[in-house]
Amino acid sequence: MNTVKKTGIWLIGAYGDIATTLIVGKLAIQNKLASDTGLITAAPPLNQLNLVAPEQLVFGGHDISDKTLYTQAEEISQRSRTFSTVLVQKLQPQLAEIDANIHALPELSWEPGNIDEDHPHLQSLIQRLSHHINAFIDKHSLDRVIMVNLASAEAYLEMSDAHRQLDTFEQLLKTDNKDQVLPSMLCAYVALQLHCPYINFTPNTGVSIDALQKLATDQGGLYYGNDGKTGETLLKTALAPMFVARNLRVMSWEGTNLLGNNDGYILNDEDKCKNKINNKGASLSSILGYPLHAGININYVPSLGDWKTAWDLIHFQGFLDVPMTMQFTWQGCDSILAAPLILDMVRLADFAACHEETGPMTHLACFFKTPIDIEEHSLHKQFEMLLHYTYQHLNE
Amino acid sequence: MNTVKKTGIWLIGAYGDIATTLIVGKLAIQNKLASDTGLITAAPPLNQLNLVAPEQLVFGGHDISDKTLYTQAEEISQRSRTFSTVLVQKLQPQLAEIDANIHALPELSWEPGNIDEDHPHLQSLIQRLSHHINAFIDKHSLDRVIMVNLASAEAYLEMSDAHRQLDTFEQLLKTDNKDQVLPSMLCAYVALQLHCPYINFTPNTGVSIDALQKLATDQGGLYYGNDGKTGETLLKTALAPMFVARNLRVMSWEGTNLLGNNDGYILNDEDKCKNKINNKGASLSSILGYPLHAGININYVPSLGDWKTAWDLIHFQGFLDVPMTMQFTWQGCDSILAAPLILDMVRLADFAACHEETGPMTHLACFFKTPIDIEEHSLHKQFEMLLHYTYQHLNE
Amino acid sequence: MNTVKKTGIWLIGAYGDIATTLIVGKLAIQNKLASDTGLITAAPPLNQLNLVAPEQLVFGGHDISDKTLYTQAEEISQRSRTFSTVLVQKLQPQLAEIDANIHALPELSWEPGNIDEDHPHLQSLIQRLSHHINAFIDKHSLDRVIMVNLASAEAYLEMSDAHRQLDTFEQLLKTDNKDQVLPSMLCAYVALQLHCPYINFTPNTGVSIDALQKLATDQGGLYYGNDGKTGETLLKTALAPMFVARNLRVMSWEGTNLLGNNDGYILNDEDKCKNKINNKGASLSSILGYPLHAGININYVPSLGDWKTAWDLIHFQGFLDVPMTMQFTWQGCDSILAAPLILDMVRLADFAACHEETGPMTHLACFFKTPIDIEEHSLHKQFEMLLHYTYQHLNE
Amino acid sequence: MNTVKKTGIWLIGAYGDIATTLIVGKLAIQNKLASDTGLITAAPPLNQLNLVAPEQLVFGGHDISDKTLYTQAEEISQRSRTFSTVLVQKLQPQLAEIDANIHALPELSWEPGNIDEDHPHLQSLIQRLSHHINAFIDKHSLDRVIMVNLASAEAYLEMSDAHRQLDTFEQLLKTDNKDQVLPSMLCAYVALQLHCPYINFTPNTGVSIDALQKLATDQGGLYYGNDGKTGETLLKTALAPMFVARNLRVMSWEGTNLLGNNDGYILNDEDKCKNKINNKGASLSSILGYPLHAGININYVPSLGDWKTAWDLIHFQGFLDVPMTMQFTWQGCDSILAAPLILDMVRLADFAACHEETGPMTHLACFFKTPIDIEEHSLHKQFEMLLHYTYQHLNE
Repeated sequence: MNTVKKTGIWLIGAYGDIATTLIVGKLAIQNKLASDTGLITAAPPLNQLNLVAPEQLVFGGHDISDKTLYTQAEEISQRSRTFSTVLVQKLQPQLAEIDANIHALPELSWEPGNIDEDHPHLQSLIQRLSHHINAFIDKHSLDRVIMVNLASAEAYLEMSDAHRQLDTFEQLLKTDNKDQVLPSMLCAYVALQLHCPYINFTPNTGVSIDALQKLATDQGGLYYGNDGKTGETLLKTALAPMFVARNLRVMSWEGTNLLGNNDGYILNDEDKCKNKINNKGASLSSILGYPLHAGININYVPSLGDWKTAWDLIHFQGFLDVPMTMQFTWQGCDSILAAPLILDMVRLADFAACHEETGPMTHLACFFKTPIDIEEHSLHKQFEMLLHYTYQHLNE
Repeated sequence: MNTVKKTGIWLIGAYGDIATTLIVGKLAIQNKLASDTGLITAAPPLNQLNLVAPEQLVFGGHDISDKTLYTQAEEISQRSRTFSTVLVQKLQPQLAEIDANIHALPELSWEPGNIDEDHPHLQSLIQRLSHHINAFIDKHSLDRVIMVNLASAEAYLEMSDAHRQLDTFEQLLKTDNKDQVLPSMLCAYVALQLHCPYINFTPNTGVSIDALQKLATDQGGLYYGNDGKTGETLLKTALAPMFVARNLRVMSWEGTNLLGNNDGYILNDEDKCKNKINNKGASLSSILGYPLHAGININYVPSLGDWKTAWDLIHFQGFLDVPMTMQFTWQGCDSILAAPLILDMVRLADFAACHEETGPMTHLACFFKTPIDIEEHSLHKQFEMLLHYTYQHLNE
Repeated sequence: MNTVKKTGIWLIGAYGDIATTLIVGKLAIQNKLASDTGLITAAPPLNQLNLVAPEQLVFGGHDISDKTLYTQAEEISQRSRTFSTVLVQKLQPQLAEIDANIHALPELSWEPGNIDEDHPHLQSLIQRLSHHINAFIDKHSLDRVIMVNLASAEAYLEMSDAHRQLDTFEQLLKTDNKDQVLPSMLCAYVALQLHCPYINFTPNTGVSIDALQKLATDQGGLYYGNDGKTGETLLKTALAPMFVARNLRVMSWEGTNLLGNNDGYILNDEDKCKNKINNKGASLSSILGYPLHAGININYVPSLGDWKTAWDLIHFQGFLDVPMTMQFTWQGCDSILAAPLILDMVRLADFAACHEETGPMTHLACFFKTPIDIEEHSLHKQFEMLLHYTYQHLNE
Repeated sequence: MNTVKKTGIWLIGAYGDIATTLIVGKLAIQNKLASDTGLITAAPPLNQLNLVAPEQLVFGGHDISDKTLYTQAEEISQRSRTFSTVLVQKLQPQLAEIDANIHALPELSWEPGNIDEDHPHLQSLIQRLSHHINAFIDKHSLDRVIMVNLASAEAYLEMSDAHRQLDTFEQLLKTDNKDQVLPSMLCAYVALQLHCPYINFTPNTGVSIDALQKLATDQGGLYYGNDGKTGETLLKTALAPMFVARNLRVMSWEGTNLLGNNDGYILNDEDKCKNKINNKGASLSSILGYPLHAGININYVPSLGDWKTAWDLIHFQGFLDVPMTMQFTWQGCDSILAAPLILDMVRLADFAACHEETGPMTHLACFFKTPIDIEEHSLHKQFEMLLHYTYQHLNE
């Protein structure tokens, strides 16, 4: 009789760089082949919470293409020089086991306004995804599954009235309206229907529409997003409060992001870049309290691979209106920065579910560029919220 | 009959770059020739406290050499390209008035182990300084004088038992022991004796010795220091918390400071640099919670003048122990960054005195590299302390 | 009787930042108020050539708007913090004298495809400009006039067959075809007709079309361009040869240019940016000998004014195919970098004319992003060409 | 009968990072496991010279400690993340073969003023080294051996009269005067005695003393050095000519070098750093033609390993004496940058020997920080010298 609790993680985009790195990292930690650096749930005080252990987590998910984790991991190790090929070789059997839980579902990606005639009906897609998740639960005797969206950037879609109410949204599903329903909405809908906590790490819409948040409320569901805060925005929201604390007036904050991974390739498409750029501008002026000139370039530079290089110039005025500058260069590996946040959030979502919490998990705001229901963008204040949550539970 | 309250500021090092910039800036703001950018007391919520207004502040002080504020200001404007020569010309009459309150006291500087035979007795120096401050109060009918130490770096002196008790310290004064009494101690002693709040913006000893803190406690005095946090350390203590919030392990944090002002010239002297460098290393590992490799270079580069250029490289490990880097370059003008902090602290010290507060003004911790009686080095948490103090008074 | 030789400089865009800085600088040097730093003709061996002296140069020109050099110079001194307001005040009378030689000719600017009905005929514009130049010569008894194009960026125009032969080009003039004739072509035409050496410091077309080069050949005219090499491209063409000398393979060379002057404002217009960006990409792969990923961002950042800040990331492979990086940040003032090159080239063009040289002045290649008739882009090899020219004349 | 020519390379410091990388790289290229990027002899026009092929080169040498190339290479691959562990595994048998040619000779290292009583006599050391080299030649039927000094930095030794003449120098050898004879001198002496071309890639003395250059002249020997130009100095000597070409006056050029390899560890010793720092300052003012403020920090930062990170700030004046700045950050792997230069120089030294050239190989100046008998420091002019040499031979 198996009495150890087990929690499943359903990854959308399970063969992407972040997902593959997450899986390799979790296995490496579990097998004592790497430290737990980068996991905030491994550091005090969060490590004192009674969180699900890495070895209790089981990976599953779907992707638009059929690959294997081993080849993906090997390719990343060679292209991005992050984890070593030797490590990947050691983990090969365990990676292969996980492959059995990952399904190729290319139909779970489409672009509004550009739909194939014979693309399956939305209702059929919902059933197919639900079926896979339920089978995953059965196979591994899971206590719970948490869905994490790690898919590529979707095209931007203006929200309409139909997205506000659950019934009108479900009407869109029934009428197979793929111009108004995005893949990320469909997945979030399935998660909530199946009582799975849902985390959206992408800038895509996901659970952002009112209809889905109402569904969550009705179901007592847990959810959070959007858009993981891993690089330049992390730095912006860590640094901007310094200018506030000294009443230094930021005139311009210009950022250039160079990246060579799939994310960069897709953001080269101006339309898909819109979600991203919108998010980046807003957080700065929210922290500073005034509008400023804040341009952002996102350039695709293939040779950099997953190593995002960001340069920011901050032009500010001090006493006697004297202009001064600071600049920084950030050379971080996107997947390496993103993957541990997923592991942290899955553990915290599992914890919240165990404690029968519901609604948006606002204590996770520090992990996101546009945290749902939270106006605060300062990283430090957001992190205080997570610490506050932690201490409340430790003092129970 | 003059009923408007007036507060004096006694500057030690009144012809230095910071003091001159402070005086020019205060006059420029008062005459609407510059904005109040850089003053945190000019921003909400601090601007809602009932603080002394710039026009109620009167400058006096002493310096080791005899100069005029006008020539000093003009020289700065040409050398450092901060405020304009045209502005200095407009303020000339007001600068000349302040010169009348500034005294050349070269005897108030000496080096232990290297004292002239005919250097005046410490008791005589105490009397002379006390006399000047009292005359300043009388001349301007001041309600209060706040002493601010802006002198150049002193040589490092190991603290001894004689510095622990007030009586043994006063014995050093009586026996004219200039090898054990530093100029900064003598000035702090005078301030406390005269019930003047005392602020030490330098890395010098000042009020740091136990004997003087006991004197302050006996007198109900107000004091704070040490070493203004204006450039690289400001950034370090603003950025380091980000690495904590993501459990990224900083392996090395290397800093290079280039500066061409008098401060840089004096810090080229290895012995005087010791106070400074000691302070810089400690704050990082205090925030991060573990020891790290944190080298610091301070190089004198005359052509840069007051424009301190700092470059820091941060080498850190993330998930799967992957090494990553970030670097920043800070190009700030030292005096322009320092001067408004003095104005802020003088206003807040005056406020504290009005409210009959006593002891170390720990709510000013965010302004210092080594804040007295405060272990916290995170800029954000220190700033929260100042906000907390402010809200407490606003809610009274 | 005046026997001292005098040379006129006809500036197109005479009230722009570069022209104003050039005039202020030339006067400052002449009046011993500034050194001759930045002038290569002031350094050995070029200073041994018998070049026209600064005091023999007389400024004239036209601009699209009516201003005064004094107000322009004062505004630059305040906005850009380059030369001081005090200097401008000293030069006021001399600046006012030059104003008398500058004409507002707004009609000398138009955009193909967007012409006012009552815009004067091209032939009339030619006559008007010729008249002004001739009057300038008479008034100052000039031995020679050199025309320098410093106008703002024009829209890009595809070259057509009509631009290849002088007769077809003159036909365009006669038929007032403003969709096929750009302002820069018209000015170059006038210069060549009047036997004035012509220098195009802009990316605009100017003398680039075959028809005008044929006219120059017929007339024995001197000309050169295009597009002054002052900032990021200067650095690129100085650094790229290092990678060649070590057989290091540049994979990507990404550049971001931030600037806040009028040039930046106009380049924000994508169409006008095209000339510029085309030029920048080509020089790198010409030096390196292979194609590479070389993206360029040009962003308008008003607060920076004339201080162009460029950041470049160079991602290259070395031995064992190991990827490495270098990055640089260039913080230079555009006008300050450009103005001395004009003075250098005017002196050298005058020298060439005295020596009855004709055709493209290819020894000036080092001053341009796209030097006419020169394939070589390495700054060092281009500079060798100028030194070679100099030594040839010195050895005559 | 073996008729293919074979050339030996005798490495001093054969288990160091550079030597190991050189050997791995040469084998990788030979086995088509890496490209020949980084080798200037692999690019036109040098690749048209009839140079010895990589597969004709045989490695041997000595080191102060006994290791194996395989463990050294594996350790580098893990510590420095340059070449991969998988590559090292593939080359294991070939690395093991080379180990047989490498001898542990700890006696070939000593410090003047700090000599063990029982340290062998210098004459005995000469015999031992000569014996090893002769045995190497015999074993592999080598046509020629080229000695390359890759040893760690020696302490600085003031040159004395005894170093000027061959007979007085040989007297030092006979009298076993280890306070006046450095290990690098002894090795160079052996090389020249055995008619081996000698290359000194270190800042150590080697062949720099007059006595040894006289010996070389007598023997018709080939030699060159000193101190490989791989990182910051490479950049300095590539960039400084740009400031000359524009007559921009460099006021300060400040450099900070962070490195974590053995070289960095040893340079932390102030005395050993002296050779290095001396060299770095001189080249800049030689190129610029005037003295300037050029400070250099060399800091040991273990976490960086072989990845030298250098930041330079260049503060310069332009037209109207306006101060401007540029800064660069160089992130290069020391061994990866150094190793191919050795391979290039060995091939070129072999070529020179085949052509019966003698004396200092001044055409190799571009590879060194302090090239023997060459005043020119500009990388570009030095590279022209190598190209000139190449074209002369190609046109023979």
